[in-house]
Amino acid sequence: MTEIEKLKDDIRSFAEERDWDQFHSPKNLSMALAVEASEIMEIFQWLTEEQSRNLSDDKLLELSDELADVAIYLIRLADKLGIDLLSAAEAKIARNKEKYPADKVRGSAKKYTEYQ
Amino acid sequence: MTEIEKLKDDIRSFAEERDWDQFHSPKNLSMALAVEASEIMEIFQWLTEEQSRNLSDDKLLELSDELADVAIYLIRLADKLGIDLLSAAEAKIARNKEKYPADKVRGSAKKYTEYQ
Amino acid sequence: MTEIEKLKDDIRSFAEERDWDQFHSPKNLSMALAVEASEIMEIFQWLTEEQSRNLSDDKLLELSDELADVAIYLIRLADKLGIDLLSAAEAKIARNKEKYPADKVRGSAKKYTEYQ
Amino acid sequence: MTEIEKLKDDIRSFAEERDWDQFHSPKNLSMALAVEASEIMEIFQWLTEEQSRNLSDDKLLELSDELADVAIYLIRLADKLGIDLLSAAEAKIARNKEKYPADKVRGSAKKYTEYQ
Repeated sequence: MTEIEKLKDDIRSFAEERDWDQFHSPKNLSMALAVEASEIMEIFQWLTEEQSRNLSDDKLLELSDELADVAIYLIRLADKLGIDLLSAAEAKIARNKEKYPADKVRGSAKKYTEYQ
Repeated sequence: MTEIEKLKDDIRSFAEERDWDQFHSPKNLSMALAVEASEIMEIFQWLTEEQSRNLSDDKLLELSDELADVAIYLIRLADKLGIDLLSAAEAKIARNKEKYPADKVRGSAKKYTEYQ
Repeated sequence: MTEIEKLKDDIRSFAEERDWDQFHSPKNLSMALAVEASEIMEIFQWLTEEQSRNLSDDKLLELSDELADVAIYLIRLADKLGIDLLSAAEAKIARNKEKYPADKVRGSAKKYTEYQ
Repeated sequence: MTEIEKLKDDIRSFAEERDWDQFHSPKNLSMALAVEASEIMEIFQWLTEEQSRNLSDDKLLELSDELADVAIYLIRLADKLGIDLLSAAEAKIARNKEKYPADKVRGSAKKYTEYQ
């Protein structure tokens, strides 16, 4: 069993033991995921990019907790949708490699913006 | 090497080969993560919870792609911050188990809402 | 002077008197706006649609405060970008009326979803 | 009738004529609002703060459209919740003035961050 599968099982048990499964519709989980992602952003909103690269240990600890929340809801949502998160991410990276050949887009902010 | 570490290395190489590392400040990555999480939500915004549990194969394929984007930016952000995503998620689940004893919060929407 | 213009001036003075203008780049304001919008969503994430239509006075008071935050950052961002928010909204509504003729899209969830 | 009230009525008629009111639960509208706020942010995510202050006319036109979307959903959500957006914003600004006296917080990034 891979590490992500283990986390998936842990989160599933956690919800089932508390009978909280009823709240975990994909719609609701998508909201929770966006809310948690936004809480990460809240930490960075008034910092410069440079400051965001040089955080205090306190901020890093706080961020570790927020990133965990995003990971948990992401794994939970994938589980509810029957999506294999690992395969999906690998497939996406492979497609991005084809779509943006390194020798054509290197260092180009423009290409990067379009790529998004 | 775990599967998440492998993804982390792949994403790192992808950015380095394109000289796109310069755009990946934690601040910018937090924005990208929130934008991608929001794109998942966009798919669910006008659906009922029931509909969100019964999606067509087309929608699931689209979602697989969007979830991959969130996973990629989450792993990338964790990498840039030096956070071990797997340990952070495991620690968070452990804390949640202590904080919300199953026999005390079972089936309670109120507890659940407070728990958030 | 219209009411939105008055709010715009009040917010501008508020920031200038505190020398907080330096933090209000459009980039940062767009983050703050998204963070505040997400805080509204947080209130609704585990509620059913029906529950979201029947809130307690406490929740409505909390929401009033959160909606105010979104309004303030929206007006501030429009000010920084030199965008006339009122005209922009009127123009958008007019375009939507043309694009979605009532007699063709009435009651159609599908059209509605596409319309988004 | 104030300008916001006029917009509110226009948006209400628009939805009623299309029988789209059924989709506009506060829960759903909170999602739409967050999605639109995120689309603004998407435009800024890879730009520096400096670049975000110096946008092309094309980008400004695009932003005008996105800001209008946020305004429309914000006014619609306030309407559905029976919240007077103008009063709410005025009250919030008044409270912020008291909470952050200009002579005590001037120029302080720290105070500003705490203020959020």
